[in-house]
Amino acid sequence: MGLFGKKPLKIGLIGLGKIAVDQHIPSIRGNKNLELVAGCSPHARPEGVNAYPDMDAMLKAHPEIEAIAICTPPQIRHKIAKAVIATGRHVFLEKPPAATLGEAEAIKTLAAAKGVSLLASWHSRFAPAVETTRKWVSERPIKSITIHWKENVRQWHPGQKWIFEAGGMGVFDPGINSLSILTRILRDSVMVKKADLHIPVNCDAPIQVEMDMQTEAGFPIRAEYDFLQAGIQTWSIYVESVAGEKLTLSMGGTELEVDGKTLMKEKEAEYSGLYAHFYNLIQKKESDADFSPLRIVADAMLLGKRIAAPEYIE
Amino acid sequence: MGLFGKKPLKIGLIGLGKIAVDQHIPSIRGNKNLELVAGCSPHARPEGVNAYPDMDAMLKAHPEIEAIAICTPPQIRHKIAKAVIATGRHVFLEKPPAATLGEAEAIKTLAAAKGVSLLASWHSRFAPAVETTRKWVSERPIKSITIHWKENVRQWHPGQKWIFEAGGMGVFDPGINSLSILTRILRDSVMVKKADLHIPVNCDAPIQVEMDMQTEAGFPIRAEYDFLQAGIQTWSIYVESVAGEKLTLSMGGTELEVDGKTLMKEKEAEYSGLYAHFYNLIQKKESDADFSPLRIVADAMLLGKRIAAPEYIE
Repeated sequence: MGLFGKKPLKIGLIGLGKIAVDQHIPSIRGNKNLELVAGCSPHARPEGVNAYPDMDAMLKAHPEIEAIAICTPPQIRHKIAKAVIATGRHVFLEKPPAATLGEAEAIKTLAAAKGVSLLASWHSRFAPAVETTRKWVSERPIKSITIHWKENVRQWHPGQKWIFEAGGMGVFDPGINSLSILTRILRDSVMVKKADLHIPVNCDAPIQVEMDMQTEAGFPIRAEYDFLQAGIQTWSIYVESVAGEKLTLSMGGTELEVDGKTLMKEKEAEYSGLYAHFYNLIQKKESDADFSPLRIVADAMLLGKRIAAPEYIE
Repeated sequence: MGLFGKKPLKIGLIGLGKIAVDQHIPSIRGNKNLELVAGCSPHARPEGVNAYPDMDAMLKAHPEIEAIAICTPPQIRHKIAKAVIATGRHVFLEKPPAATLGEAEAIKTLAAAKGVSLLASWHSRFAPAVETTRKWVSERPIKSITIHWKENVRQWHPGQKWIFEAGGMGVFDPGINSLSILTRILRDSVMVKKADLHIPVNCDAPIQVEMDMQTEAGFPIRAEYDFLQAGIQTWSIYVESVAGEKLTLSMGGTELEVDGKTLMKEKEAEYSGLYAHFYNLIQKKESDADFSPLRIVADAMLLGKRIAAPEYIE
């Protein structure tokens, strides 16, 4: 039984790869309001999960499933979301919500028409220090924001070939996490002004990006993404106020420092927050589908200068 | 005096390049409700136009200007539109409305806040046979749509270097015209599923594109764009119904054929229709700002496979 004596919400997973095993499965299991009933994948069979080869087989065996989280690569997410919504189940979309803005908007329209809850999830928005940062930013005029999101693709995305294929977004796959924080902490919308996209000669998506953005208020935002970062991994956002105060949100949003003083240093617990949010949306018959981080990436790809980078071999 | 004894609406132009001379100036002059007061450009001085070096000089000399058409390259359109809206004038944006979706949305927000009319123009939607095509398409189930938009960039865009620069969109600059017709004749929204982007090794924007799209209803839409078309120039949309009927909208929307029978063959008069529409929007205190053609291009650039094409030399 969940909180308040309610029966837990029955969840199925589509896609049982790395993110499902690392995050979704433990987060669902850690939430008393939720019950992981089954999952499906053409090949993966993680321990302790009732796994089926596809959605139809999973739902035939478990018609009691009420909500489905889609953790597949983004290229096939729209097709699967459409099928899930047609069965009347609530939908949790891993990030990015789809391969294109058009697909994402279509999913939103379908979910609204069917009356199911849709969560287009951005896990980084649930990092512990994001809300404090948002408050700090809203309380003073800002001079500039700089994003450094630099990680080693070989360490964090082993075997994930789709990431460098057309639609896989390359370094924007982690980079979009920083954009999901950026669009959460700013009230104004963000415009891309310039982007240098370094694309390996044997890939379709960038491995390194430098991007200049601006808000309508006019302060500059600079993002530097690097997928070949050896040594120290960096997932940091630096904010400087007009008055010269300096805030650093680091380690993907778990650590917060203002003017050299550590204010927060927490354990990562994004997916627990996400699943609690998903449960609340369903209870309130609401949806949360903000596509602005994906819009920024699409704008960067539309506007960006393509620069040939050396061949990438995993 | 305009129709109904009203004084004509006073218009200024920003950007006095090829499209201003070929289309805007004659269309404004041909409409009794409109008066071309002045224009500005850092260098161009077309005959018979009161030309100023920049917007500030133009508005200082002609504060009576009520509406401004922005005909500059898209890369600087947002900045100019922002300045125009700040002066309280109505805005006519050449296509595409801005360099990015973020900029386009920002312009829309600013215009709404200031209470001025905004027209994000798509001239091809005013081609004479588009509305008849829209009716035909809405009256029967559709099997497929094929777009061939093939023209010689050297003939139609002489000296327009910006077109192959980052944000210039390359062959999508004419191609987006076909997408503006497509999104007008279809009720359903359009999703990009696959795009092959042929980008010359010395350019940042594609010179040739093959793109597969789909509506939620599921029928395929194929677009083929070519900027190196020698010989016969093609701006055609072919529609086939489930029942096997065939409609061809050609010459950019001036000619219409159904099952081999010519139904329409008109003179091109898109900009006259556009300016009449702009005048009506202002009278009704309304705006028309649909960015879906730009969204499709952004999605194609997000999802597309980049293929190296030979160097382009004008």
